[in-house]
Order: sequence, then C-alpha cells, then structure tokens
Amino acid sequence: MAGFDRHITIFSPEGRVYQVEYAFKAINTTNLTAVAVKGDDVAVIAVQKRVPDSLIVRDSVTSIFRISQTVACCAIGIVPDARFQVKRAQSEAANFKYKHGYDMPVDLLAKKMADLNQYYTQNAEMRCLGVGLLFVAFDDERGPEVYRVDPAGYFRGMRGVAMGVKQGPATVCLEKKIKKRAQWDSTHPAELAIEALQTSLGIDVRANDVEVVVVDKTSVRTLNNEEVEQYLTLIATRD
Amino acid sequence: MAGFDRHITIFSPEGRVYQVEYAFKAINTTNLTAVAVKGDDVAVIAVQKRVPDSLIVRDSVTSIFRISQTVACCAIGIVPDARFQVKRAQSEAANFKYKHGYDMPVDLLAKKMADLNQYYTQNAEMRCLGVGLLFVAFDDERGPEVYRVDPAGYFRGMRGVAMGVKQGPATVCLEKKIKKRAQWDSTHPAELAIEALQTSLGIDVRANDVEVVVVDKTSVRTLNNEEVEQYLTLIATRD
Amino acid sequence: MAGFDRHITIFSPEGRVYQVEYAFKAINTTNLTAVAVKGDDVAVIAVQKRVPDSLIVRDSVTSIFRISQTVACCAIGIVPDARFQVKRAQSEAANFKYKHGYDMPVDLLAKKMADLNQYYTQNAEMRCLGVGLLFVAFDDERGPEVYRVDPAGYFRGMRGVAMGVKQGPATVCLEKKIKKRAQWDSTHPAELAIEALQTSLGIDVRANDVEVVVVDKTSVRTLNNEEVEQYLTLIATRD
Amino acid sequence: MAGFDRHITIFSPEGRVYQVEYAFKAINTTNLTAVAVKGDDVAVIAVQKRVPDSLIVRDSVTSIFRISQTVACCAIGIVPDARFQVKRAQSEAANFKYKHGYDMPVDLLAKKMADLNQYYTQNAEMRCLGVGLLFVAFDDERGPEVYRVDPAGYFRGMRGVAMGVKQGPATVCLEKKIKKRAQWDSTHPAELAIEALQTSLGIDVRANDVEVVVVDKTSVRTLNNEEVEQYLTLIATRD
Amino acid sequence: MAGFDRHITIFSPEGRVYQVEYAFKAINTTNLTAVAVKGDDVAVIAVQKRVPDSLIVRDSVTSIFRISQTVACCAIGIVPDARFQVKRAQSEAANFKYKHGYDMPVDLLAKKMADLNQYYTQNAEMRCLGVGLLFVAFDDERGPEVYRVDPAGYFRGMRGVAMGVKQGPATVCLEKKIKKRAQWDSTHPAELAIEALQTSLGIDVRANDVEVVVVDKTSVRTLNNEEVEQYLTLIATRD
Amino acid sequence: MAGFDRHITIFSPEGRVYQVEYAFKAINTTNLTAVAVKGDDVAVIAVQKRVPDSLIVRDSVTSIFRISQTVACCAIGIVPDARFQVKRAQSEAANFKYKHGYDMPVDLLAKKMADLNQYYTQNAEMRCLGVGLLFVAFDDERGPEVYRVDPAGYFRGMRGVAMGVKQGPATVCLEKKIKKRAQWDSTHPAELAIEALQTSLGIDVRANDVEVVVVDKTSVRTLNNEEVEQYLTLIATRD
Amino acid sequence: MAGFDRHITIFSPEGRVYQVEYAFKAINTTNLTAVAVKGDDVAVIAVQKRVPDSLIVRDSVTSIFRISQTVACCAIGIVPDARFQVKRAQSEAANFKYKHGYDMPVDLLAKKMADLNQYYTQNAEMRCLGVGLLFVAFDDERGPEVYRVDPAGYFRGMRGVAMGVKQGPATVCLEKKIKKRAQWDSTHPAELAIEALQTSLGIDVRANDVEVVVVDKTSVRTLNNEEVEQYLTLIATRD
Repeated sequence: MAGFDRHITIFSPEGRVYQVEYAFKAINTTNLTAVAVKGDDVAVIAVQKRVPDSLIVRDSVTSIFRISQTVACCAIGIVPDARFQVKRAQSEAANFKYKHGYDMPVDLLAKKMADLNQYYTQNAEMRCLGVGLLFVAFDDERGPEVYRVDPAGYFRGMRGVAMGVKQGPATVCLEKKIKKRAQWDSTHPAELAIEALQTSLGIDVRANDVEVVVVDKTSVRTLNNEEVEQYLTLIATRD
Repeated sequence: MAGFDRHITIFSPEGRVYQVEYAFKAINTTNLTAVAVKGDDVAVIAVQKRVPDSLIVRDSVTSIFRISQTVACCAIGIVPDARFQVKRAQSEAANFKYKHGYDMPVDLLAKKMADLNQYYTQNAEMRCLGVGLLFVAFDDERGPEVYRVDPAGYFRGMRGVAMGVKQGPATVCLEKKIKKRAQWDSTHPAELAIEALQTSLGIDVRANDVEVVVVDKTSVRTLNNEEVEQYLTLIATRD
Repeated sequence: MAGFDRHITIFSPEGRVYQVEYAFKAINTTNLTAVAVKGDDVAVIAVQKRVPDSLIVRDSVTSIFRISQTVACCAIGIVPDARFQVKRAQSEAANFKYKHGYDMPVDLLAKKMADLNQYYTQNAEMRCLGVGLLFVAFDDERGPEVYRVDPAGYFRGMRGVAMGVKQGPATVCLEKKIKKRAQWDSTHPAELAIEALQTSLGIDVRANDVEVVVVDKTSVRTLNNEEVEQYLTLIATRD
Repeated sequence: MAGFDRHITIFSPEGRVYQVEYAFKAINTTNLTAVAVKGDDVAVIAVQKRVPDSLIVRDSVTSIFRISQTVACCAIGIVPDARFQVKRAQSEAANFKYKHGYDMPVDLLAKKMADLNQYYTQNAEMRCLGVGLLFVAFDDERGPEVYRVDPAGYFRGMRGVAMGVKQGPATVCLEKKIKKRAQWDSTHPAELAIEALQTSLGIDVRANDVEVVVVDKTSVRTLNNEEVEQYLTLIATRD
Repeated sequence: MAGFDRHITIFSPEGRVYQVEYAFKAINTTNLTAVAVKGDDVAVIAVQKRVPDSLIVRDSVTSIFRISQTVACCAIGIVPDARFQVKRAQSEAANFKYKHGYDMPVDLLAKKMADLNQYYTQNAEMRCLGVGLLFVAFDDERGPEVYRVDPAGYFRGMRGVAMGVKQGPATVCLEKKIKKRAQWDSTHPAELAIEALQTSLGIDVRANDVEVVVVDKTSVRTLNNEEVEQYLTLIATRD
Repeated sequence: MAGFDRHITIFSPEGRVYQVEYAFKAINTTNLTAVAVKGDDVAVIAVQKRVPDSLIVRDSVTSIFRISQTVACCAIGIVPDARFQVKRAQSEAANFKYKHGYDMPVDLLAKKMADLNQYYTQNAEMRCLGVGLLFVAFDDERGPEVYRVDPAGYFRGMRGVAMGVKQGPATVCLEKKIKKRAQWDSTHPAELAIEALQTSLGIDVRANDVEVVVVDKTSVRTLNNEEVEQYLTLIATRD
Repeated sequence: MAGFDRHITIFSPEGRVYQVEYAFKAINTTNLTAVAVKGDDVAVIAVQKRVPDSLIVRDSVTSIFRISQTVACCAIGIVPDARFQVKRAQSEAANFKYKHGYDMPVDLLAKKMADLNQYYTQNAEMRCLGVGLLFVAFDDERGPEVYRVDPAGYFRGMRGVAMGVKQGPATVCLEKKIKKRAQWDSTHPAELAIEALQTSLGIDVRANDVEVVVVDKTSVRTLNNEEVEQYLTLIATRD
C-alpha cells in the first residue's frame, strides 16, 4: 500500500483507490445501522437512534432528513459530512422543482448525489465524504422507491437495503425474508425493516432506540413511539 | 498513524481524520473548563476565569462573548482562534438580523458555525480551529437553549454540557444531577453549573475564579462577584 | 517501480506511464466480461449481468446504455466512472446532432471519447477513468460497426472484441471462430457473442445472467429473456 | 515532533502548532528586552538600545515607533519583520482616523494586529512574523493603557509587561513591585520600567543603553539622556 | 538518478533532463519502425503496420495521417499522444492556411511542433509527449522534404531518416545506401525506404505489413498492396 | 538543520530562517569587498574591481551603479541578482521623483529596498536575492549619507561600513580609525575607504583594482586612476 | 548536496543555487565549441558545425542565427532551448525597433536576455534554459561588439570569448594571443577565432566543420567554404 493510500486521486498498482475505501470505513464510525425496505405502497427507513448521553436534547439527534415533499433521506457516517450532504440534496431538489415545476424524481436525485461523490474521488481538491445515503420516496408512476448512494459514487435502486456497522447481518436477514416471497409481500415493510435491524443488532430494541420513517403516496411521516412499539410486539409475538 | 495525521483532509485506513482529532486536544491547551445548563427560564454558562499573572488587566480576560441581543457564547481553546470564531459568529448573527429583521435563532447560528467547521475538515486550504463553542440563548418560542459546537463540525442542543480539560468529571456530575429529576428541576441552573464546575476541578472555587453568564427572556447578564458568592455559599451549606 | 507509479503523468525510465496501466486493472474490479461482434446487418453486445444481491431492483443494474438513436455503449469497470463516461458520450452525441443535424457517426464518437481519455493520461489534474467502453452502432453507409475505447485513449474499429476479466479467453474464442470464415459469416452475431461470453466464463450461462443488445438499421434493442434463451439453446444443441 | 514542526498550519498530536512556537523564539534572536508599565497618568516603555558597532549612525537604531498621535509601539524580534508590523499598524491607525475622524483606540489597534497574526497561524500562504509588540497609549476616557500582542495572535491589556530575552526575570521584578501596591502606586512608571529592565539584565544600565518613551494626555515623548540618568540615580540611591 | 527522474523540469547534475529521455523510450513502446526518404521528385514514408489481433477492423489501424493538402505525418509512440499531436498539427496547418491563404510550409510546421515539445520540457504543467513525428511534404519551390520532430523539441530536415524500435539498423542501412550516391539517386525513394525497413526488421516483410505513403507535386497517396508488392519483389530480385 | 533549511519561509526550532542566512553567504560568492565611508562633505564607496580575464571589455565590469542624480549604489553578490536589485532601485527612485517632483531621499530608498527583501523572506513564491547593497548619497539637509541593505531586509545608516568577503577585517580597520576621532575627521573619506579596503585584503592594491565613487553636494563622480593612485601613495607614505 | 540540487530556487548552505550550475553543464551536452572575437572593424563568431549523420540536410544544421539587421547570435547547448532563446531575442529586437525606430543596441539586447535568465533562477515556475549565447554586432558609435550571456543571467562585453565543451583551451589560446597585443591587432578576427577553435579542438578543422559569421558596418555575413579555407591555410602556413 506504501503511499498509494495517501493520495486521493491516484490508482494503486491493483487499480484501487484507497481513500475511497477508507471513506467507507468512516461510515461505521458513528456505530449506527439503517435498513430501508420498499413495499408495494410504502417505502420505509428504520435506523438506530443513539443519544450518547442523557444531557442531550433528544429531538436534536436524528439520522433521517426530509429532502422534499416526497423524498426522505437517511445519512449515516461522519455527522457533519452527513449534514453537508443532506443540505446539498435539499438544495438540488429545490432547484429542480424551481426549474421544472415538479418534484425531482428520486432516481435523478440519487444519481446527482452519486455523481458528486464520484467527482470527489477523481478530483484532488476535496476529500471524499464519509457518509452513506439511503433515499426513500414515492413516485406517482413507479410507486415507492429505495435508493442507496455510497462515497465511491455508486447508486442502486433496491427492494431492501442495509447500511452501517451491521450491514452484513441485516442484509442476510433481508435476503432470507425476500426468498420466502409470499411472506415478504404480506409483511408490512416497516415490520421487515425493524426486524432486520433488530436481528442484526442481536439485542432487543426499544421503541426509543429506533427512528422509522414511512413514505407513501401522500406523506413522509415519522412513526411515533406507540406505532414502533406495535411493530416490535408484532415481531416478538410472531416468533 | 504514519503520515495520515499530517494531512488535514485525508482518511486514515480506519476512516479517521487525525487533524480533526488533534484540534480537539488543542481545546484543552488553555486548561479551562466550562459548563452550560439549560433551565426552565434561563440558560447559564459558568467558566473558569484564569488570569495568568497579576500584571494583566483583569477585565481584559474573558471566555464569554455576547453574540447578539439574545445569544452569548463561551469559546474555549486557542485564544486567537476563539476570537476568530466569535467574530465570525457575531458577523453571521448581525447579517441575519439585517436580512430578516429579527434575531438569528441560536440553533441556526450553531448550525452555521458547525458547517464552517465541517468545511475546514474537508478542504485543505485552512486548518481546523482549535476551539470549542457553547452557545446559550433565550428563544421567544422555545425558551432557554444551550448548544455545543466542536472543531469537527458537530453541534447538539443540550440540557447540560461541559467542555474543556475537566469535561469528563463535569459531565459525570451533571448526569448524576439530571437523574434525580426533581432535584435538577428545583435547582437554579446557575447553581447546577457552578457546582459541576467546582466538582470537576476538585478544589474550592472562589467567586473571582468563575465567570457566570445568565441568559433569560430579557437579558444576557454577567453575574457579579456577590451573586456568584451566594451560589457558592448555597452549594457549600447544602452539602 | 519505486515511486514512478504514484504520479499520473510521468514516464518511468522504460517510458511507461504506470497509472494508465493500473486504470486497466480497475476495469476488472467489477468482475464482468463483455463481448461485441459486428455482423453484416447487425452489431451485438453481450455482457454479463450480475445483480450482487437479491435485494437490488433488477432493472437498475445494467452495463449497456443507449447513447443516441443509433448507438449503444457497454461500459465495464468502476461503476461511477462508467456513468461519468456514458453521460459524457451522451452529451457529445447530443451536441453533435444539435450542431450538424444528423447523428454523430460512431467512429467520431469513439475518437472523441478516446481523446478525452488521452487527455486524462497527460494532465495531472484528473485521474484516468477506470472504465472500458464498447460502442456498437449502425451507420447508414458503412453498416454495423463496433468500436473499443480504453483508459489509455486507444480506440479501434473491431469485427469482434472482448473486454473485462475474461477478455483473454473470450478473445481466443472469437479468433477461433473468425478463422473459420464461412462459419463466422453464417452465424448470427448475437450467437457468436453469447457463445464467446459463455466459453470464456467456463460455466453455463442462464438468460438471466446476460444482457444482449442488438443494433440494426432501424433500432437499438435489448433482447428479452426468451430470445437470449433461444440463442443459448442453439449454442447448446449445436455443440 | 517528527515533521509536525515543518508545516505552518497543522496540529501536532498534542494539539500544538509548532511553527507558532518557533516564531516566539525568533523574538529573542535580537537579544533585547523591553518593559512597559501603565501608571495612573502615564504609560511608559523602556527598552534596551543596543548599537551593535560604533560605525552605525546611533539615531537610526530604535525599537520604539510612533503609530499615531497617541499611540507608541515597541517591536522586538526580527528587525525587518518588526518594520513590516509597525508599518501595518501605522496604516491601520491612519485608515481608522480617516474613516472615523478620531484616533484609533489602542485596544482596537492591538486586536487588529493580533487578528492578523492569528490569520498567519491558520493560513499556509505566509509564515508567522517573528516579532512581539507592546503598545502604550493614552485614552481620553480610560487613561493610560498598555497592550501586548504576540506572534500567535494573543493580545492582553496589562498593568506591567516584559517581553524579550529577559522576559522572565523582568516579569518577576514587576510582580514583586505590584504586590506592594502602595509602593507601585507611588513610584513613577518610568522608574518602575527602568528598574525592572536593569534588574532583569543583571548589570548597571547606562542612560545610553535605554530608550524610554512616555505617553501622557498630551504627548508621546522620548526621554533624553539626562532624564533617564535621573531615574537611574534615583533607583541606585533608593536601594 | 535518485529523484532527478521524477521531476519533469529539472536538470540532473550532469545537465540532463531525465523525463525527456524517458519520453524517447516511450516512442518504442508500440514496437514499430518507420523510415522516410526524400528523393528528387517525391518523399516517402514507410512504416510497419501491426494489427494486434484479427478482430480489429484493419483499416482503422494506421500510423500515417494527412495533415494538409501537401503534408503527411507519421506518428510513432503512445497512440493517444500521437492522436493528440496529429490533431494539433492539423489545426496549426489549417489556421496557417486560413490566415495566410496558402499551405503551411512543412519546415514551419515541423518547427512549430518542435517548439511545442520544447515548451513541455521547460514547463512543469504538462508532461512531454511520448511520440516521434516524421513529416513528408512537397514544397513548390524546394521540392520534396522530410522532417523529423522528437519529444525533446529537436527537428531536422533529413534526406533519409528512421524512427522507432529499429531506428539504429534502419539508419545504418540508409547511410550505407547514401554513401553510394549514384545508387541512391537512381533508386526510387519508396524502394529505399521499404528496403531499409525490411533490413532493420531482419525478416521478410509482406505487403500487408507495411504502410507506404508517397508525396509528390500533386498528391499525398498511400500505395496499395500491389504497388508495395512490386517494390518488395524488386528488392528481393535485386539482391 | 534537518529539512528546515530547504524551505524559504519556515522557522527552525531556534527561530531561525535558514534560507535567509544562506543568501548572506551568496554575497561572498563573487569574492569582492566594498567599503563605504561617510564624511562631513562627501560620502565614498570603494570596491574591488576584479576583471576575471583579460578578454573582458574592462568598462563592462563594475559593482557601482548610479541610482539617481544624488544616489549611488554598490551591489555585491550574485551579479544577475545585483542587476535585478539595481534596476528595481532605479525604478523606485524614478517613480518617486515623478510623483513628488524631488529626488527620493536615500533613507526612504534604502527602506523600500529592505522592505522588498523582507517580503521575499516571508513569502514562498520567490527566493531571497543573494546580494548586499550599499547606498551613498548627499542630502541637502542632512549632508552625506551611507546606508546598508542586506538580504534579510535589515537596513542601517552608517558612518562607515564594509561588505563582502573581507567584511570582518575591513570593519575592524574602520573601527580603529573611528576611535581616533580626530584622525577620522581630518582624513578624506576616500582615503579611509581605500585604506580599509587595502588593509582588509592584505595586499597592495593598484589603482586599477579599485573603483571609487565620491558623492558630494553637486555630483556622483567616479575617481579616475590618477586620483586613486594619489590616495594610494598618500596611504603608503603616511605609514 | 542532499536535496538542495533538486529545487530550482533555493540556496544551498554555501549560498549556491545548484540547478543554475547544472544548466551550465547542459550547455556542453551538444559537444560544440564557439569562439567570438571583436576586432577594430568587424566582430566574428566561429563555431563548430557538426552534422551528426550524412542523412541530415546540411543546411538545416546551424548554431548561428540572425537576430536583426546588425546583430547575430550563436546559441550553444540544448538545441530546442537555443531555438526558444533565439526566437525571444528576435522578438525583443523587433519590438524595440518598432517602438523606437532604430535597431536595438546589442548591449541592451544582451542585458534583456540575461535579465530573463536571472528571472528563471529566481522563480520556481520555469526551469533555467540550458543554453549559452554569444552576440556579435556592429554599433554605429562603438564599432564591433561581442557579448556573452549565460544561464545564470550574467552578461559581459568581451574582446574575445569562448563557450562550450572546449571553452577552457580556447580561452587559453585567445588569452595568449591578446597578450601579444600587436599580433592580436594585426590579425583578422576571423583568423583569430578559427585558430582558437582549431587549437582547442586539437584536430585539423576542415572548412566544412566550421561556421563563421562576420559582422561589419554594413552586413551580417556567413563566410563560404572558400573563405574559411583561406583562413585555415593562412593559419597552417603561418605556424
């Protein structure tokens, strides 16, 4: 690796760009996991909420941000970098709406954010951002959608996706579920997401420890504690 | 660490940005501790006042600055960096008022300062600033507020917060207090802040060694020596 | 190599530019292979489709992009770089059409993309892009055409070409076929391309695992699963 | 220290900026000491005058510069850097007067110079200046004032201050004096400053070896040799 | 060499500029040889044609480019660099004609290209180009001309010249011929060039493996296979 | 010194800027010595004239340049750097005269040149100049003047000054003379300067080997060989 | 030397700028020697002409260039650098004539070229040029003149001067001649120059191997082979 990993924009002899790979590790430094699931009518993000100490005003801690009328975004990683990215996404979405008169489709938005990330991997001026993004949205024509954008500039439309420290186990859980197709289709995406999150963490999650945002045809809505509790009970009793 | 800690804007293989972490250490070089507490009606900052030698004009040494009509800021760390940040905050607040006709809400101000810090961590041109900021303010709608902004670009609304060399013990003290909720609510924030400061320092503090600023609905006011003395007596007799 | 391979735009003592060579390796990091064949009436690209996990929305994964009415492009390598290149090609083609009133001939387009790649090898500002491109098109005068463009800025018109991890075996396969000229001429290019792909991978390919795009006088068309299946059956039974 | 001390604008792992610390050492390279004392009616600077050899025109050697009608400045350290700073201070003061119609208050001037120094510590373009500044002035409202500005960007209002090679012993001497408050108040600041200077140097100072500037309500005035001699006699006889 | 070879624009202690010398080596990386001969009425370039594999469209591989009505250029070395240079030469020639109304004389063109190369060796901004150029042209006044331009910025009018991997033996062959002046004058330049090429390669060349361009008073013309074959037969029988 | 001496604008741990110190050594590389003396009515520069070989046109070798009607300058060190500085001084003096209508006082000119040198020590763009300057002039009010400007940006008014390889012994000689004040005052400055130069060189100087320029109320005049010879005889006979 | 010789614009501890010294060595890389002599009525340059191989068009090889109506220049060293300098000199001379209406005096031209070289030694942007220049000219007032300009920015008016690989022996030869003043004055400068060149090379020079340019009141003229032969015979018979 000697030296190749200290320059943002050069290839190592194996054709790798190390700084980009390190940026992925930075996503895990906040020690959070997020899961997004796309259903037939709604798309859902569930993400851990970790208030580091009791002195912090609870409401000021969140990983989910509203980007526009129809798009929500979960940003995991270095918090200030996340804020930077969210602000940029909001501004892109707003400009689009101003120019075209309708909401920016989430695939365009995800592509735009991915393009910006790609640029940071190619240009020496600014470092890559240590943050991963999940976009959930409801498109009038295509219904609910989930997109994942990473620091390398990749983006993908997903039916279910996990991101963060426990991305591995959470993905395994989602994949198991989706194989039993009927079960997947008959379960509410919020339940799927919360269960994947809980399974990956390996502990009992309390309603307090999760943020869940549901996007449907009409709204972007954060579930309240009671609603989350219901899903948790549902999961617990079902098993 | 070999080399990764000498470049401001690159990730180490573990996804860390060392220069930002070193900037945190620079906060402690002035060897001060500050505590801020948010009460029901007032927000309070208490910070050590250390006049290094008797030849210095006492009044010219302070860590607390008025940012606007309703916001005060405690800046701890490299003193000239602190001055730089305070001036910037004042200018942001003034511009906001000029543009919008009302005082800049403290959360926006804290966010703006945090955004600037984040930018320094991403761009190679300027080093991070070795200074931590505590904002206290009184908002007409939300009442008293306390915000913390650090060199990495994080900011948080807090009910109580400590910063500086003795941040650890002072935080422990605040957390103990807040657990006994009744006691917390019935104690004046100034008393809480001064006690946390005194406890963390492990010595008897004299009124001369502390600056206390109280922000309430009508004013940003520095307590005089007699007022501080009263709180100190209160704490001493209570125990 | 000590040190020579860390600067994008310098020659090593043997007159090599290592960074360019590393960019070639980056093409293989996505572990895909593509084959393009030029026939008498049609040009075909066949490329592996690898959906890394079952959660991904299948349709959002593709390596083939429509550049204009008459040109398709297969881009293999670092995905965000590929997107960057495809967007650029689209924009070049669109500008050309706008300026000249007719579709950009694919040789000009390939040349233009190659020129851009050459520029990246010469200028320190931007790194080379880790992506290889195959263009297929139908020219009114010259009939079907296949062009290959690589990160070093080379481009070539080809009768058959492979690119990616299994470029070696796929090329050998194509060369064998073309030597038996009669056989080559009498086989549909799609069959040739799919067979070369399958041979090089050394496994049985399912229709699901291949994207095939056929360009003829009138259209740029993606084969559906049934059509691919037919070719696969044809290949299997023929042997 | 390995390497951290060769970059102007980076933190070492302990949160230090080495180049700034080295700039402090540059202050001592001219081997001079200066003392300033603020009295009730006058402020005084006393500084060694060292004419390196007899061929130099005596009058062309000085460490004290007039900044405006009411402000004098003693600059110690690298001489050309000192000239650079003095010129800048003069220009700041002149611009202020031109804009506002009255003399620039010395605290604003000191703050401005300190802000410029802070900027040099943060920005990679220019090195820090190896020079320390003492400002003495008479303010209509606040009376005599003494300010100290250092290469790191610190500035402080002082009742008495020493700077340069013998800063340590001279400060000790001033602190002893100020503890006997009555004695301090009843002694002329010029006597205090000259005595502190003489004590710190540990040798008998001749009138020729000292520059003394006295600022009072009406003037900025350099003492002549006879006046300095009187103070020296006073000090000698008093002991 | 320690380090001197990684900086484009510095001298080594022996007064050498290594990067320029490495650029010469880059000329040989494509493993081609070219020979140009100036006769009384025509100038000729003969260059190997190497189509790396049978899948490539033969006609798209060439090392000889038409620069203007009366000038052809053979470019050997890194192919994208060659394309860059050829495009530049074409543009210089076109601009000249536009400005002056007549074709750019080949000596001016060669000088211009050489000047550009010299600039790359002096300025740190761009690397040298790894390509050598041979210009052949027919000037109304001076008759046929051959010019050689190299990466260091040298250019020379030549009666015969070789470039590329086998430059050494090809030059020896040309020099032998030219010593027997009568024989040189009575032989067609195309024959001389092809023979030098064949001799230097040490193998029997087939018409397919050579590109030959002849420039005379009226045209810039590529010989077809039959014509090349005739020269090859001539050479073979003569010996 | 490890590394500190290779960066123009950084401090070493002892507060030194090495590049500036090396520039002083560059003054001696031409192996010349100059002496300037200020008398009551005239100022004189005497400097070695060393014509390296007999082929050089004698008149084209000089170290003394006329800056304006009333100012002469002796520049010792790297010759092209000297030319650069002299041209700059001439241009500064000419601009001053044009703007203000009278000759630029020599102290202002020396200060200006010193300021430029200081800037080179602070800014990384240009290296320091390896040249020392002596200015002699006649001021209507202050009479004859001698100024010395060095690469670090120092400047001093002097009664007598030496510069160059033999600066040490020449200064000693001047200091001896000036101690016997009567003798100093009664000797013509030209004699003093020539004697100091001769003494420092330790050899008999011939009129041919010295350039002497005398500035008085009315002129800047180079002594001819006969005049120099007279002074040399005077010195020889006196001893 | 460790490292000091890799930075164009820094001093080594001995006050040397290594890159400039290496540029001098680059002058010798073309292995040529030039001699210029100034007579009473004419100035002459004699320089080796070395046509590296018989294939080169003889006339395209020269080291002497006409700068203006009255000035010729011999440029030895890196050939493309030489071309760069010659073009610059021509352009300076042309601009001067355009602005002032008369030919640029050669001393001004030499000074200008030297100033440009000095700038390259001071500024980090461009490397020094590895080329030495000899200017010969005829000035209406001062008669014939010879100037030498080197990469460090030195320039000198000379009565005789040698440059290049054999500069040492050629200079010795010229110095011997000039000591016998009568002989020097009675010999034609062309003879002197050719003899010095021949002596320094230690071989019999043929007319073919020398370029000789003579500048007199009316013209800048290259001697033809017969004329050079005459001088060679003269020299041979005289000995």
